[in-house]
Amino acid sequence: MSSSCDYRFRQAAQALGFSFDGPIQIGGNYAPVIQHGNQLYVSGQIPRVGDRVVITGSAGDGVDLSQAQMAAKICAMRALALLQQTLGSLDKVQAILKINVYVQSAREFTQQSEVADGASEILYTVLGPLGAHTRTSVGVYQLPKNATVELDLIAVGHG
Amino acid sequence: MSSSCDYRFRQAAQALGFSFDGPIQIGGNYAPVIQHGNQLYVSGQIPRVGDRVVITGSAGDGVDLSQAQMAAKICAMRALALLQQTLGSLDKVQAILKINVYVQSAREFTQQSEVADGASEILYTVLGPLGAHTRTSVGVYQLPKNATVELDLIAVGHG
Amino acid sequence: MSSSCDYRFRQAAQALGFSFDGPIQIGGNYAPVIQHGNQLYVSGQIPRVGDRVVITGSAGDGVDLSQAQMAAKICAMRALALLQQTLGSLDKVQAILKINVYVQSAREFTQQSEVADGASEILYTVLGPLGAHTRTSVGVYQLPKNATVELDLIAVGHG
Repeated sequence: MSSSCDYRFRQAAQALGFSFDGPIQIGGNYAPVIQHGNQLYVSGQIPRVGDRVVITGSAGDGVDLSQAQMAAKICAMRALALLQQTLGSLDKVQAILKINVYVQSAREFTQQSEVADGASEILYTVLGPLGAHTRTSVGVYQLPKNATVELDLIAVGHG
Repeated sequence: MSSSCDYRFRQAAQALGFSFDGPIQIGGNYAPVIQHGNQLYVSGQIPRVGDRVVITGSAGDGVDLSQAQMAAKICAMRALALLQQTLGSLDKVQAILKINVYVQSAREFTQQSEVADGASEILYTVLGPLGAHTRTSVGVYQLPKNATVELDLIAVGHG
Repeated sequence: MSSSCDYRFRQAAQALGFSFDGPIQIGGNYAPVIQHGNQLYVSGQIPRVGDRVVITGSAGDGVDLSQAQMAAKICAMRALALLQQTLGSLDKVQAILKINVYVQSAREFTQQSEVADGASEILYTVLGPLGAHTRTSVGVYQLPKNATVELDLIAVGHG
């Protein structure tokens, strides 16, 4: 936990003002992470901190771009927290193959890519060049618990 | 076809009141399953039984939670039927890496995770602990043929 | 660039009336393609040609089926252009494991599969039998830059 990626993860959490220590709660009968060989699939994350979904509603209708980006950042931090718990350290992440970013959107809101940039920024900040990833961002009609953003990813790791 | 997973699959089909024998129809110019190495990608399944999509419309607007869960169960059974046909037996499934559950949703409907629990329950019932999986569930605006749910998955198998 | 797949790609581009030469622009802080082992993940593509998103709006509400299919074709061509640039030639594509097709849809529009057939047709036309793929198509509420279609894919290649 004293490595460079783990250190930057703690710094990013402090900058966001949230803690991602402790168990990452999920909302159903499934696994948060499945590892197969060196690939790790992470389940869809919503901006939940502890028991509470902290950013809800539709981007472009009561939720502005910067709030939606914050939601994307929290989702990305949760995904990283799960990788850290699974691998022991974020230094064991070798690549992020793909992230999907689902943005609960008002009809006229077309900045889903800009929302997803929040998540991408977290990955580059914490993982450096190994945080490079492919991405798909779409505008959905609704998300579990009225979350503004949901994010899942596929990573490669060792250990 | 006499193995334990295949037996539980038949039991689950009987409990649902539908048959998943015979060819699984798809609605376009693509493959229902692609196997690469030991990974199997299964195309998006809607709750079609034979020729008919049996559950249509939006969850939260004419389709209640239990009907939407039934739609998710049928989608999961179709995906398992395709794995069974491809591998020869569901006993050859080694892992389910990921399922995506798309729920046609009314604006105020936020129980996409609860809908997806229907699919997850089928996977655990039929595959036991090997049915563990990561999951993303989102609320979409519309689905092919007005289906209430669409589900795809990535599995690992041998043979 | 003189191989059969690359030749068919150029022919398909001419038939569509668009050029896919030169850099493929993306709209955010991420990678267009990530290769891991022999798997290639391609980021979500919208029907952008050069600087311009050429087909925007909702299928079923101002955008008809054939226009939406054209959007899907352009997305597929962009994805192939990225594979070509990454691998050096489309002859090095060994398989397409999965495509996801997100269609910006009016509430009553249920032909997402027919829209996605536009993308599937491109894959078969350019890659022949190796263009076989699994597919998920869903109707979303909005897409980046008001695009009518977004498509991503996972391919297998060598070289």
